[in-house]
Amino acid sequence: MAAAAEQQQQQQQQGFRPLDEASLVAYIKATPALAARLGGSLDALTIKEVGDGNLNFVYIVLSDAGSVVIKQALPYIRCVGDSWPMTRERAYFEASALQKHRGLCPDHVPEVYHFDRAMSLIGMRYIEPPHIILRKGLIAGVEYPLLAEHMADYMAKTLFFTSLLYNSTTDHKKGVAQYCDNVEMCRLTEQVVFSDPYMLAKYNRCTSPFLDNDAAAVREDAELKLEIAELKSMFIERAQALLHGDLHTGSIMVTPDSTQVIDPEFAFYGPMGYDIGAFLGNLILAYFSQDGHADQANDRKAYKKWILKTIEDSWNLFHKKFVELWNKHKDGNGEAYLPPIYNSSELLRLAQKKYMTSLFHDSLGFGSAKMIRRIVGIAHVEDFESIEDASKRASCERRALNCAKAILKGRRQFESIGQVIVHVQSFDRD
Amino acid sequence: MAAAAEQQQQQQQQGFRPLDEASLVAYIKATPALAARLGGSLDALTIKEVGDGNLNFVYIVLSDAGSVVIKQALPYIRCVGDSWPMTRERAYFEASALQKHRGLCPDHVPEVYHFDRAMSLIGMRYIEPPHIILRKGLIAGVEYPLLAEHMADYMAKTLFFTSLLYNSTTDHKKGVAQYCDNVEMCRLTEQVVFSDPYMLAKYNRCTSPFLDNDAAAVREDAELKLEIAELKSMFIERAQALLHGDLHTGSIMVTPDSTQVIDPEFAFYGPMGYDIGAFLGNLILAYFSQDGHADQANDRKAYKKWILKTIEDSWNLFHKKFVELWNKHKDGNGEAYLPPIYNSSELLRLAQKKYMTSLFHDSLGFGSAKMIRRIVGIAHVEDFESIEDASKRASCERRALNCAKAILKGRRQFESIGQVIVHVQSFDRD
Ligand SMILES: Nc1ncnc2c1ncn2[C@@H]1O[C@H](COP(=O)(O)OP(=O)(O)O)[C@@H](O)[C@H]1O
Ligand SMILES: Nc1ncnc2c1ncn2[C@@H]1O[C@H](COP(=O)(O)OP(=O)(O)O)[C@@H](O)[C@H]1O
Ligand SMILES: [Mg+2]
Ligand SMILES: [Mg+2]
Ligand SMILES: [Mg+2]
Ligand SMILES: [Mg+2]
Ligand SMILES: [Mg+2]
Repeated sequence: MAAAAEQQQQQQQQGFRPLDEASLVAYIKATPALAARLGGSLDALTIKEVGDGNLNFVYIVLSDAGSVVIKQALPYIRCVGDSWPMTRERAYFEASALQKHRGLCPDHVPEVYHFDRAMSLIGMRYIEPPHIILRKGLIAGVEYPLLAEHMADYMAKTLFFTSLLYNSTTDHKKGVAQYCDNVEMCRLTEQVVFSDPYMLAKYNRCTSPFLDNDAAAVREDAELKLEIAELKSMFIERAQALLHGDLHTGSIMVTPDSTQVIDPEFAFYGPMGYDIGAFLGNLILAYFSQDGHADQANDRKAYKKWILKTIEDSWNLFHKKFVELWNKHKDGNGEAYLPPIYNSSELLRLAQKKYMTSLFHDSLGFGSAKMIRRIVGIAHVEDFESIEDASKRASCERRALNCAKAILKGRRQFESIGQVIVHVQSFDRD
Repeated sequence: MAAAAEQQQQQQQQGFRPLDEASLVAYIKATPALAARLGGSLDALTIKEVGDGNLNFVYIVLSDAGSVVIKQALPYIRCVGDSWPMTRERAYFEASALQKHRGLCPDHVPEVYHFDRAMSLIGMRYIEPPHIILRKGLIAGVEYPLLAEHMADYMAKTLFFTSLLYNSTTDHKKGVAQYCDNVEMCRLTEQVVFSDPYMLAKYNRCTSPFLDNDAAAVREDAELKLEIAELKSMFIERAQALLHGDLHTGSIMVTPDSTQVIDPEFAFYGPMGYDIGAFLGNLILAYFSQDGHADQANDRKAYKKWILKTIEDSWNLFHKKFVELWNKHKDGNGEAYLPPIYNSSELLRLAQKKYMTSLFHDSLGFGSAKMIRRIVGIAHVEDFESIEDASKRASCERRALNCAKAILKGRRQFESIGQVIVHVQSFDRD
């Protein structure tokens, strides 16, 4: 078994080579599943590397007759370089999760055309213009009227249908075992989300000198450290559903009509609140960054209202859709709440209320942890980074940080997303 | 992969045959690891089948020069028959867990001499007389002065050393993935512990007619059903440590000097409180059964005090030993509480307090769930079953049931095991 695994690994190493724009053409020509997407005319391809992400290489490939996106994982973290090695197997888990989640929610997940495990290479739908990365839209102040509805749909379906509310324990544990192997990615999250921000760590940074004391305060906040320990344990131990694992606003491509979720290379069975929190937390970051983008043409006041409304709608619609799925499938294969036990609609309602309240508090906890790490950890967000005036940026970041700390500590006191919105607004003053 | 798994399964089916006392002799002769344990004289073996358990066949094999116990799993549940099929692979998980736990706690886990996966057969140390099953000792009213100390040692070591407090996330997830395959056993537990007692189910029984209303009340108790749902989810989702999985007083063999834990065929990565609760809950059952065993020679009053003291000491010593292990290994491979974050002894102490409080409440929850299922579910305990007078038995069982229901609902209110003891005693009146 160990020998077999080793052999497999060697074969994979043998089959692997990092592509560039030239060798990619040859690869496509040799790969019918990709060639077919581009029509016959493979001799006049336009190829553009667009990987603005932190980890991988992404090529947009266009022909007269079609298009495809090729994403390849190299055995290290792109934005750090080969001093930070990272398993290429993340491409396998990204492809698996894309396929699984697309099966559950085809409207909001791109199709995978081709996966080559040895090459750590995914060929998928080109999410064409005018789609842009949501984070960029938020920075530009663009409203997406369907975003909350679409993301609620995506989260409700991917989380519900991969949980014990829908699946038998047998199927669930099969999935858990499969994704246990994506542990290197989980460890990366552990480090950059749940550990480094709370200690002195090599890659931590903040808007210095303005936030030096704020960052130090995070490292000295006992209450915060007790809360983060609980979330960190839950992150690793609790296999509640197949998560996207990196559901920030940089993993979502949008137009006013369409919402597409990409980049689930951190996928694993974890607590649902981690995905929901990632999305909501990044919207709150976008909110606090708006003052840094306000100018005479646009004071961003109306846009801030829209962001808050989107946060509120996202949770409320998620809640509604998730419970609807639960009710619809309550007599299905899921064994968590057996109909002969939860045998009155009143009792089922109580059980759902308890479940959703606890999920809400988890989401707030993980969401605020994701906010904190974007301000005092290694990876910052463009929402703030693009504010050129460092002092202005720092003051936006400080409000976000203080808001997140308070939510993390007090999350169990919130009874509705409306209360959270009021809380967020209360930090939006100097 | 699927083909390989199928082939493996076929081979295993081919290699399998249920042994009896005659064929066992031939098997031993052909198996050096077993033959060696019995010395040379294999022609005068004494073989006795002693499987008093519910699931498997257990043979004690004695020669002039040695001894061995052979345990074989058949593809169904022994006490129900082949109408209830059950994977023989449970023997693999039992052998794996015995070996793992023995490595961590050799004083309290028997040595495995031989494991034959195709035959679902374990050869292990014969835990010789005067060892008896603890449950039988408790029924007989025998005190075991070292029991609490030994079980605290066993639970602290097996749970701590298989948790994220000691292991890297990578090693932890490897273990989780391995034991995901023991899912059939987990499903059996789900059914008989967390589901059947709360609904009308074929195999449920209770001391009828005395407890009919009590059993019905369990099935109609909304609060109880909400709590059991939470525990059931935790049981399946939360991979906190490698559990024994069936740690009742029938899985422990004792003398006044020695404590040996057998039968971890339900082993899986689950919430620690499930093991701790199984042990404490079964001691509480033993406590409530004592009035049924009192006679003129022995009113069992002193013995009941000893049981309560043993419950109290078990938790307190477990707590002490577990935290000692944590302190000792705080700078080791475990990544849950990194020293640069939990960087003062005061902060670490607070983190430990939070962790242990939550573990205490989990243990109380699972312990009471295990009590309830032994009174209104399929598998009852000899502690009560051996009380011949049904009305007397029912009144013992009712007190235990009411006590367990109250603990399950109110577990988060308890701050110490001492308070639980007071609570238990308060139910020990008509
Ligand atoms: N299917 C796609 N269609 C169009 N653009 C894409 C697609 N996938 C990725 N991109 C672009 O490439 C960028 C990086 O992709 P991403 O999957 O997030 O990589 P990383 O894992 O490195 O973060 C995205 O921000 C987006 O601009
Ligand atoms: N190693 C052993 N040494 C002595 N007796 C044993 C040993 N293992 C099992 N037994 C006896 O066999 C009985 C059933 O064993 P157990 O492992 O509990 O089987 P089951 O899984 O069927 O419950 C025990 O109650 C005990 O009396
Ligand atoms: Mg990305
Ligand atoms: Mg990525
Ligand atoms: Mg047994
Ligand atoms: Mg048993
Ligand atoms: Mg057993």
